[in-house]
Amino acid sequence: MSIAAQPSSPAAHSTPASRTAGGRVFNFNAGPSILPEEVLRQVQGDIWDFQGSGFGIMEHSHRAKVYDDVIRQTEADVRAVGNVPANFRVLFMSGGSSSQNFIVPANLLPADKAADYIVTGYWGQRSYDDADQWAKSFGGRVHLAATSADTNHSYIPERHNWSGTSDKDKPAYVHLTTNNTIYGTQWRTASGTERLPAVPDGVPIVADACSDIYSRPIDFTKYGLVYASAQKNLGVTGTTIVFVRDDLVESANANLPRMLQYRHFAKELSMPNTPPAFSIYTVGLMAKWIKAQGGLDALHARNVAKAGVVYAALDAAPSFYKPHARTQDRSLMNIVFKCHASKGMTGEGMDAKLMAEAKAQGLDGLAGHRAAGGMRASLYNAMPHEGAEALGQFLTDFARRNG
Amino acid sequence: MSIAAQPSSPAAHSTPASRTAGGRVFNFNAGPSILPEEVLRQVQGDIWDFQGSGFGIMEHSHRAKVYDDVIRQTEADVRAVGNVPANFRVLFMSGGSSSQNFIVPANLLPADKAADYIVTGYWGQRSYDDADQWAKSFGGRVHLAATSADTNHSYIPERHNWSGTSDKDKPAYVHLTTNNTIYGTQWRTASGTERLPAVPDGVPIVADACSDIYSRPIDFTKYGLVYASAQKNLGVTGTTIVFVRDDLVESANANLPRMLQYRHFAKELSMPNTPPAFSIYTVGLMAKWIKAQGGLDALHARNVAKAGVVYAALDAAPSFYKPHARTQDRSLMNIVFKCHASKGMTGEGMDAKLMAEAKAQGLDGLAGHRAAGGMRASLYNAMPHEGAEALGQFLTDFARRNG
Repeated sequence: MSIAAQPSSPAAHSTPASRTAGGRVFNFNAGPSILPEEVLRQVQGDIWDFQGSGFGIMEHSHRAKVYDDVIRQTEADVRAVGNVPANFRVLFMSGGSSSQNFIVPANLLPADKAADYIVTGYWGQRSYDDADQWAKSFGGRVHLAATSADTNHSYIPERHNWSGTSDKDKPAYVHLTTNNTIYGTQWRTASGTERLPAVPDGVPIVADACSDIYSRPIDFTKYGLVYASAQKNLGVTGTTIVFVRDDLVESANANLPRMLQYRHFAKELSMPNTPPAFSIYTVGLMAKWIKAQGGLDALHARNVAKAGVVYAALDAAPSFYKPHARTQDRSLMNIVFKCHASKGMTGEGMDAKLMAEAKAQGLDGLAGHRAAGGMRASLYNAMPHEGAEALGQFLTDFARRNG
Repeated sequence: MSIAAQPSSPAAHSTPASRTAGGRVFNFNAGPSILPEEVLRQVQGDIWDFQGSGFGIMEHSHRAKVYDDVIRQTEADVRAVGNVPANFRVLFMSGGSSSQNFIVPANLLPADKAADYIVTGYWGQRSYDDADQWAKSFGGRVHLAATSADTNHSYIPERHNWSGTSDKDKPAYVHLTTNNTIYGTQWRTASGTERLPAVPDGVPIVADACSDIYSRPIDFTKYGLVYASAQKNLGVTGTTIVFVRDDLVESANANLPRMLQYRHFAKELSMPNTPPAFSIYTVGLMAKWIKAQGGLDALHARNVAKAGVVYAALDAAPSFYKPHARTQDRSLMNIVFKCHASKGMTGEGMDAKLMAEAKAQGLDGLAGHRAAGGMRASLYNAMPHEGAEALGQFLTDFARRNG
């Protein structure tokens, strides 16, 4: 009995490795990232023989009925799960969110207008830079309304500290990044639900929601356009999902190459050419999986609990761990932290030791992005609660042994 | 014995269905299309646990060593199999060949130059139209040097019938489509090997090789740039492979959005952002598979034999079948044909009957593109010789029963 009362025993170091229900390693990578094991099992079967057709999903023509049903059902499921309003198009494009960085201003920024950018991280800065490059070459102006660069993006800027385009000269749109994968901050309320800044009346918010799309309920009526690559919460690499309001599609620049026009993708139902068909199919599987989990409300509750477990472990050892994000802006998706120097080791040395031991215990993919350093634990939809628990216990144990 | 001497017996109609070695249907779709069953088996395993890493290939970070090794080895294998010269970059982009339609002129067509287009089919026309749209908006001129539209693209135009940009005012490049998926013609010699037109000295040929890339040896030194989507001969939907000569990368327009610049993809080794990582991985599997088959020479011999079987069946029943392409321009990849009207049925009626019976016998995906009508049998690298034999026998039998 006394052993059970001593969870900090050094013997904990040799606890059996953590494993998923399917016997795999817990994968905390930021994207591409963990997928549900049920979905992977489904894919394994479908790539050999899809729905009894005699050949696999990757081999079906996008112009034949079998695949047409897949993409239409995928769109329907994505709409149902996310409660996407009827006046929004759901487009499956490609090129990643990085391509949306210029496709957004190319479509939505008239030559005589400005667009406001709120930069809360690395990808937000890239969105701003790419839009600025587009504007300088092809027209329009891009305005840096706020940035959290002063603290290496540890927080979401307060509205009263912005210098937005004036209410009189309304911006064409306001761009923001809902979750900052690299720095681990998120636009959120105290309970972790969606939060958006006030913008001038009638100005659409354009959001890069790459790393938190469908991790919690989203009220699309508050946005003009939302884009997200599939490979974090919604599937495998290859497609970028664009939710865009009809009036923005209709008023967008018609003088662009077809393959850059939202209008063209809307008209062609996301198939102006061979689409990234396999990736879109996986989005459909993920939408069905989310529905089976109870939808976005249920996933959000689960994601709050998962992040809570890991943040609690970090907060319980404040002299050992250093979380990056300001508490109220902490991301539920990506938890970014470092070790303090301890017992004669530098912080970086302790980070490396932590990651090596974690990997040996079946907790992989914890390396932070080079821009933030340290560790990053990504807890997307597909990460089971057991993975967060295993990580939390490991962090607690590691701090006890090394702090 | 007399039964064996009567292969035209109506009983042949009820022959057992044809099946691949793996027990699947023969898939003649034009793309996405058949993949080798060995490759599919490999993917089934790799998406669960890749190389003992504890999680699957779709879940690996593109920035970690495991995937970095995959993309670098994929490039190395693609180079080795295709004998790609050292002064060519191999870029993995996205957006399909349709996106290259404007990315090529955006990069390679200066505002004061013209580019010549040889239109030999539907996709060639789209390449021309998209380049023309780019030029009208952003500079440069696009010249229709030749087209086979007069016969619904049944042939490859002769060089002496072109009206190319003059030798004095050399074009920036000459664009052509090596194989016309929809109409079933191909730039080829009598033996089916590569053939290219004479162009003014120093003018690069830019080729859309979407539907015959790596189906036969290719001499990259004859081109400036070659592009191809993966989903016919080289893998699954999601990536577009661009082979481009260094000097064209270096002299290309630097005033484009990053995600449209060949220069940016070359500098970032095809990972300026999260690439279509899974699709690229399948290209690597296909390159290894091609190598295991004996390389491009061996595949070419096999592709010649496969196409020969099917064309022979069509040619043996000239009053029943009507192949679309001029004989010397026949594609080895896509065989396009119709039925003549017969026994009181219209040609279209007979086409429909043929496809329904073929499908019932395990020969699927034979529907032609709406622009050409009738049937199309695609015989890409992964189609086994047995599939071509089964189709040839079916066509012979069908003509006997219905002609």
